[in-house]
Amino acid sequence: MNTAKDVRDSIRTGEWTKPTAGLAPGYTQANLVILPKKYAYDFLLFCIRNPKTCPLIEVTDVGSPEPKGTAQGADLRTDIPKYRIFRDGELVDEVTDITEYWQDDLVSFLIGCSFTFEKPLLDNGIPIRYIEEGRNVSMYSTNIPCASAGVFSGPMVVSMRPMTPAEAIRATQITSRFPSVHGAPVHIGDPAAIGIKDINKPDFGDAVTIRGGEVPVFWGCGVTPQAAVMASKPEFVITHAPGHMFITDVRDEHYAVI
Amino acid sequence: MNTAKDVRDSIRTGEWTKPTAGLAPGYTQANLVILPKKYAYDFLLFCIRNPKTCPLIEVTDVGSPEPKGTAQGADLRTDIPKYRIFRDGELVDEVTDITEYWQDDLVSFLIGCSFTFEKPLLDNGIPIRYIEEGRNVSMYSTNIPCASAGVFSGPMVVSMRPMTPAEAIRATQITSRFPSVHGAPVHIGDPAAIGIKDINKPDFGDAVTIRGGEVPVFWGCGVTPQAAVMASKPEFVITHAPGHMFITDVRDEHYAVI
Repeated sequence: MNTAKDVRDSIRTGEWTKPTAGLAPGYTQANLVILPKKYAYDFLLFCIRNPKTCPLIEVTDVGSPEPKGTAQGADLRTDIPKYRIFRDGELVDEVTDITEYWQDDLVSFLIGCSFTFEKPLLDNGIPIRYIEEGRNVSMYSTNIPCASAGVFSGPMVVSMRPMTPAEAIRATQITSRFPSVHGAPVHIGDPAAIGIKDINKPDFGDAVTIRGGEVPVFWGCGVTPQAAVMASKPEFVITHAPGHMFITDVRDEHYAVI
Repeated sequence: MNTAKDVRDSIRTGEWTKPTAGLAPGYTQANLVILPKKYAYDFLLFCIRNPKTCPLIEVTDVGSPEPKGTAQGADLRTDIPKYRIFRDGELVDEVTDITEYWQDDLVSFLIGCSFTFEKPLLDNGIPIRYIEEGRNVSMYSTNIPCASAGVFSGPMVVSMRPMTPAEAIRATQITSRFPSVHGAPVHIGDPAAIGIKDINKPDFGDAVTIRGGEVPVFWGCGVTPQAAVMASKPEFVITHAPGHMFITDVRDEHYAVI
């Protein structure tokens, strides 16, 4: 199970149904949003206007479940371990295969994920607390508005990793290399400055320990576009289940600009 | 005439009708493509799938001539010195104001331009031959296919600047800072390797002198999306006239990722 394709095959056959963190190291994993074509233009525009939170990795042709640009031969209906089905903004099903839900008017959006820049952070000796503590990353809604686009609008959602100021400076350098997967932090320090009332109560994910001398460092988060989609209550949406990502054939380093 | 707004005002009143190179130094200039909404999704997708040649700076709301994200209060119908009107792929008019051509279903796309990275090249002492020789930049169609999207497809068009290998290395570093305005070169050296038959006969713009010891260095060019649009012969398109760009309120350095 070393290459992305090996992992996707074991997901397709139902052998692997758990989260994908740590699988196929070095291959880029992506968030998934599937919408009917009638919402696709507004959603594309929303992503383009909010590139730090909604970095588009690939957009499929209408009706095609194959992400030809990042994983030829893959099938987005079967190659993710767990999906969520929403109707009118309500979660109606959680499944391991969406073949029965597929429609000819669906467009799939693969959106970059912070896994891509966490590997180089770890390689630089920067601790990632939620991994150390075996939790999910801490995520918060902020008072920073996204640029709206058609029916889609909402606040920026950020992920947070605590570290020392020196590590925050190095992390800024490292993540700046990856502008197409969230890029540099959007904020360092005082949570209240971006509308976060209690750093110990994340809106999504788990709280993590912030040690003495550490500051919270915030990055744009791929939950932002999902939250904007849900807020608009479209009649039909499919997403991956949290942590159950699509694994592309593209190496993480492909997204580094330097 | 120092700020972008000053220049746009003098263009709007008809005082300035010439090319915009060198105006409002440090402010980002952009290519313009205006299409009816029915083509907008395919064109957005084409840009997203070909980011090195089609870097989107802004996409307006349907029917709105105001680029709110990059130049609040500007009017894309009057604030560019010269426009070209195309019907069914044929140039039918060249005007200094498109108010009479405006329709409620039009979407405007502002696309990044190499002016943004030429200033830092010059600041680093890298010669830009076409400027030295008072010509237009050399541009070539290549055998590199763009990723197609709906009705839009075509070859990558590149711009070329000759320089020494040491300068090419430095230029690669400098332009890598600007991934959202073409970014790093797409090719260095042998023109035939990307399907260019005669480096002295550019497909667009002018030939420039390549001195002994210099190599041609090629960047993705904003003519690519315009060429793809023209090839599909949409019933109605408006573009800027070559060299007559839209000047935004955004500083060039805003687009540097480091």
